[in-house]
Amino acid sequence: MSKPNLTVRRSLFILILLCLTSGVWAQGLESPDRRLSMQFALNAQGRPTYQLTFDGQEIIKTSGLGLELKKEEAGRQETFDNTQHTQAETIDRKADLMTGFTLVDAETSTFDETWRPVWGEESEIRNHYNELAVKLHQEKNDRDIIIRFRLFNDGLGFRYEFPDQKNLTYFIIKEEHTQFRLTGDHMAWWVPGDFDTQEYAFTGSRLSEIRSKLPATVTSNASQTPAGPTCVQTALMMKSDDGLYINLHEAACINYATMHLNYLEDQQTFESLLTPDARGDKGFMQTPCVSPWRTIIVGHSGADILASRMTLNLNEPCKIEDTSWIRPTKYIGVWWEMIVGRSHWAYTDDVTSVKLGQTDYSKLKPSGRHAANTENVKRYIDFAARHGFDAVLVEGWNQGWEDWFGHQKDYVFDFVTPYPDFDVEAIREYASQKGVKMIMHHETSSSTRNYERHLDKAYQFMVDHDYPAVKSGYVGDILPRGEHHYSQWINNHYLYCITKAADYHIMVNAHEAVRPTGICRTYPNMIGNESARGTEFEAFGGNTVDHTTILPFTRLIGGPMDYTPGIFEMDCSKISPDNQSHARTTLARQLALYVTMYSPLQMAADLPENYERFMDAFQFIKDVPVDWQRSLYLEAEPGQVVTIARKDKHSDNWFVGSTVGPEGHTTRLSFSFLDPGCKYEATIYADGKDASWDKNPQSYIIFKKKVNSKTKLDLKSASGGGFAISVKAIK
Amino acid sequence: MSKPNLTVRRSLFILILLCLTSGVWAQGLESPDRRLSMQFALNAQGRPTYQLTFDGQEIIKTSGLGLELKKEEAGRQETFDNTQHTQAETIDRKADLMTGFTLVDAETSTFDETWRPVWGEESEIRNHYNELAVKLHQEKNDRDIIIRFRLFNDGLGFRYEFPDQKNLTYFIIKEEHTQFRLTGDHMAWWVPGDFDTQEYAFTGSRLSEIRSKLPATVTSNASQTPAGPTCVQTALMMKSDDGLYINLHEAACINYATMHLNYLEDQQTFESLLTPDARGDKGFMQTPCVSPWRTIIVGHSGADILASRMTLNLNEPCKIEDTSWIRPTKYIGVWWEMIVGRSHWAYTDDVTSVKLGQTDYSKLKPSGRHAANTENVKRYIDFAARHGFDAVLVEGWNQGWEDWFGHQKDYVFDFVTPYPDFDVEAIREYASQKGVKMIMHHETSSSTRNYERHLDKAYQFMVDHDYPAVKSGYVGDILPRGEHHYSQWINNHYLYCITKAADYHIMVNAHEAVRPTGICRTYPNMIGNESARGTEFEAFGGNTVDHTTILPFTRLIGGPMDYTPGIFEMDCSKISPDNQSHARTTLARQLALYVTMYSPLQMAADLPENYERFMDAFQFIKDVPVDWQRSLYLEAEPGQVVTIARKDKHSDNWFVGSTVGPEGHTTRLSFSFLDPGCKYEATIYADGKDASWDKNPQSYIIFKKKVNSKTKLDLKSASGGGFAISVKAIK
Repeated sequence: MSKPNLTVRRSLFILILLCLTSGVWAQGLESPDRRLSMQFALNAQGRPTYQLTFDGQEIIKTSGLGLELKKEEAGRQETFDNTQHTQAETIDRKADLMTGFTLVDAETSTFDETWRPVWGEESEIRNHYNELAVKLHQEKNDRDIIIRFRLFNDGLGFRYEFPDQKNLTYFIIKEEHTQFRLTGDHMAWWVPGDFDTQEYAFTGSRLSEIRSKLPATVTSNASQTPAGPTCVQTALMMKSDDGLYINLHEAACINYATMHLNYLEDQQTFESLLTPDARGDKGFMQTPCVSPWRTIIVGHSGADILASRMTLNLNEPCKIEDTSWIRPTKYIGVWWEMIVGRSHWAYTDDVTSVKLGQTDYSKLKPSGRHAANTENVKRYIDFAARHGFDAVLVEGWNQGWEDWFGHQKDYVFDFVTPYPDFDVEAIREYASQKGVKMIMHHETSSSTRNYERHLDKAYQFMVDHDYPAVKSGYVGDILPRGEHHYSQWINNHYLYCITKAADYHIMVNAHEAVRPTGICRTYPNMIGNESARGTEFEAFGGNTVDHTTILPFTRLIGGPMDYTPGIFEMDCSKISPDNQSHARTTLARQLALYVTMYSPLQMAADLPENYERFMDAFQFIKDVPVDWQRSLYLEAEPGQVVTIARKDKHSDNWFVGSTVGPEGHTTRLSFSFLDPGCKYEATIYADGKDASWDKNPQSYIIFKKKVNSKTKLDLKSASGGGFAISVKAIK
Repeated sequence: MSKPNLTVRRSLFILILLCLTSGVWAQGLESPDRRLSMQFALNAQGRPTYQLTFDGQEIIKTSGLGLELKKEEAGRQETFDNTQHTQAETIDRKADLMTGFTLVDAETSTFDETWRPVWGEESEIRNHYNELAVKLHQEKNDRDIIIRFRLFNDGLGFRYEFPDQKNLTYFIIKEEHTQFRLTGDHMAWWVPGDFDTQEYAFTGSRLSEIRSKLPATVTSNASQTPAGPTCVQTALMMKSDDGLYINLHEAACINYATMHLNYLEDQQTFESLLTPDARGDKGFMQTPCVSPWRTIIVGHSGADILASRMTLNLNEPCKIEDTSWIRPTKYIGVWWEMIVGRSHWAYTDDVTSVKLGQTDYSKLKPSGRHAANTENVKRYIDFAARHGFDAVLVEGWNQGWEDWFGHQKDYVFDFVTPYPDFDVEAIREYASQKGVKMIMHHETSSSTRNYERHLDKAYQFMVDHDYPAVKSGYVGDILPRGEHHYSQWINNHYLYCITKAADYHIMVNAHEAVRPTGICRTYPNMIGNESARGTEFEAFGGNTVDHTTILPFTRLIGGPMDYTPGIFEMDCSKISPDNQSHARTTLARQLALYVTMYSPLQMAADLPENYERFMDAFQFIKDVPVDWQRSLYLEAEPGQVVTIARKDKHSDNWFVGSTVGPEGHTTRLSFSFLDPGCKYEATIYADGKDASWDKNPQSYIIFKKKVNSKTKLDLKSASGGGFAISVKAIK
């Protein structure tokens, strides 16, 4: 690892700053490769602004920055005095943290460091940027803030910093007013803004079409609070008519509310809109503190966006000292059979209302459809052991599933009490004999206080029974009631669980939690997240055909997703007769997803019996690694195609995956990424000639081919299809 | 202990029920002594009502019962299906849980049991009542409820019961509409309704004067949310013009919001008003469940009210199996010197903003006024040991006090990290050598999530360092923000702490927490509470002179208060020159409070040096027990006088205390409560002839006198004065 190269230049701002005619200050900053440049300026109202240019083309027009604070009663006096004055004085100007600023100081610096993630798309990541930190003074309130810009070769990150100071110590954010003024009516791939879910289908549309198209995109969800008629979520992927790719997201969202983007149509501008708490407040801050980074990743191709490591680089280095227990994991699970509807999480149909500790399950009649029974679990363990999987997830093992959803029930699970037919000791022993780990499941039903109350015992239970990882879930409305899935209070909860899990050497894969913002760099035991429509929606009517060509540009910008690919039986009625859903994918594409949907945690989601029907194709899932040395983005066009080649972290083998949209796609694949001096044998898993997601999804071909760095290969993918290739180095 | 005598009579309601002309049903119930009688009836709208009569005089006129539920969207379907319908259907009639009822069944029974509290005003308590349980059916919603009435000789308790049933499983309470229709414009002693504090001065007024007098009573507090212009708190004490004493409160408020009483002037009626959550909802319920008991204690004298054990009797028996570790405790503390303003909780003046784990106290300059330093604590331990106190409380020992209040700060304390000058190990050892226990202090700053996160470690820290009891505090606005001190969510928090404390064998004395409702019977490790203006207000401008003559009729109805009496230096400026407060009490009355303000936890609140000036008077505090065999209420008139005689639980000694209002009072004390065959020596601590709370509070006389059951003694108490007597049996 190279030593960080850090250069700080204190600007003598009289010399360096540009003094514009209006008396407004401005300062420029360039990326290390000088292709990106930004201008910071204070406008006539003393409002900080920035502007961003890429290869001479404007990406972001001059855009306002700043925050609006909540108007508050002047601080109440300490209660233990003799006077106890409460002043109801409201001072408007104090709420303004946006205008009236003057520049005090500007500091530029350069940073260049290469670091090794515990796991990732690459074994080494370069973190190279030029930095500008502007210190601003607001005379009317005698307050200072710093805005820190980091300009990488692949984009811009900036954040607000609030130093410790007399007149700004504790404050409440009413709203953040960070703007992104765009240069045209770009194409955008978005889901509607919502404070409680991201599980919507993506819409690709012009920015000007957001308002008209948005209502139809707000399909029903287990918990949802739409954020506004032109409000969308991050990461937002855009493409300009002149071929610029622009991605807006955030990095290191810690102790802060998650940002949405509200589109101001008349200004062709996105403005930040933070997730509110139960009273509509957006954040409670104590200086010194910082906002998350607001990120603009830019490129001339979709591949530039996917190759960016800016989101990770803007996060703090790993805070976990010993990371030896954090291991990328391939797993199967007692899950899909319930998702599809063949079996149940719940143990019994006898009751529809449960009181933990009072409901005596030993006296209730099992429904006969409870999947998490010892025998069934052993069957999955056998399959995992036979095919080299690391672990088995089991959902529905613990008491409480009969009424867990939709009742805002406080004491909904205790996370340690199994159903009568789940023999936790026997399963621990059996899995251990077979060399398979178990993956714990903690559905919280969004009852966050209840989960925190049980967290220590639940994690200790995992340690005691050899579960090194947990899939947690946050289905339904948040408790405490009125809070939202992405508010500061609840974001704080997720991180609390992650840091406490680290104390127990437990890896966390949280579903329905807040979308990640690269914090897995700092806490690499956060090995997965959902935070978007995953494979489960293939059994809830089907994901859109282009879904997996958009996710890498949106959801995955913040970190890995536990997408749970590997569906070999697309016709859900074959598993559960009443389920008319059809997965909108070919079988070959399902293999590709293990490469295109990067995650250190990969599931083979389908039933063992479905894999047994297609063992030749299943071989790819067995072979594909879950940790990488290098990644190359060969084709990348949202809605159309994503083709990625990755080199195994622990061998010279390469793996290629391609997922395509409804139009199908022909890939001219060049193997130029291979080591020129080496020989390889490729095994290609491609769509059959007559394949298509709807008519013939299980039509695939497998063939082997000797390849080298000069090989080229045309591969035709069907509608909703794709291909996967494993390339083994021949010694 | 006598065996419970339980008789159940299933009423054949055709025979027993009265069929009134309108087709309305009614049924009567009498108290065991037949002096109280109540009538249950369904009115013409099918609304349940009750009416209460005492010795032929109506106490409560026919009053409505029932609840209003929140109108809700029909339950969302389980998320994991294929259709995901959300029905926005709102069905109004479902919100009505108040009218349209018919009587299904009525069951009467008798219960008579004598039980022994772990600690209390008496060593045995008789629980004797007649019960009527009416089962009601609401045809329009096909729902059932039960209203259970228990009629004691001293009053009525009733509650709503919601059995498990198809059409009433999970529901949200919009409001409870329990009414108390009064028979006249009674005198009442009240504090204004507030969802976040009870720390108001009492007002004695006619009911009709509540509206006009209320605004002035809402004095400023560290957290307050006034509940309405005619809303008051319980326990509410009333007196009718014909000499009936009526007390309204609740018992066993568990997993339910605290009740306030909203006065409907035109109907001369109080109606229940529950504490809302952050969104204004009043309760989330899952059947089977019950409401707290609504209580009406009645009598022909104030003494009847004070002698009532109805509140305790309506609570569940003790749930803690081994109670050997629960011990009534007399203590002193490093506290009053900070309350008065001479010293500080905080360690330093160097910072006004703290981040735990980041703020390095070892580098900060101590203010020199930090009371919780090892040397000072040892001085208190010495004093405690010398004078036979059980324990020493120390506040301000742990890091975080520099900015603990008023900032809605989440991570405000960790409850285990002492300031640099508080040597927890040395203090543990010193106290242990001296035979003195330490009392822990956990100020939560109302940051309830943070407290729960640290609770296990904080309690374990107590066990490790020999602190058998904790004083917890909830100063300031509740976190999660928007919740209130008395909402269901936060009431649940307090009980969570108490039950978890029991696991660690820890006794809890929660300040600023919800007012107690007798649950110390069930959880006797809850040895104290504040929940009203305590002695601290004597240093914040002074309590009203009659305050301690009202508390026994109001705050103490629900359980003991940690009032912290024992102030010998009334002039606060003598301790802290800037504090102009003057405690509104004579010294003799301060002694009386150890008898009149029943608590198993009694503090001697003043500074050791003040006690050393009056060691003859201090002797009473040393002598007075904190647990009792019998209690007799000799004089009891709210606002005027409370005189109580109690017999020590572990000897034949008696103790008498009397506290009087601003008018002063002469007590004709008869010692008839003494054992006729025994001889006694009484030591009388009375106001001096020239004593008065404002002019000469430290004027007292002490004299000894041989007494027997025939002795009578006139004792004149000054304005704000009183007397205390210890009566030792001569063997």
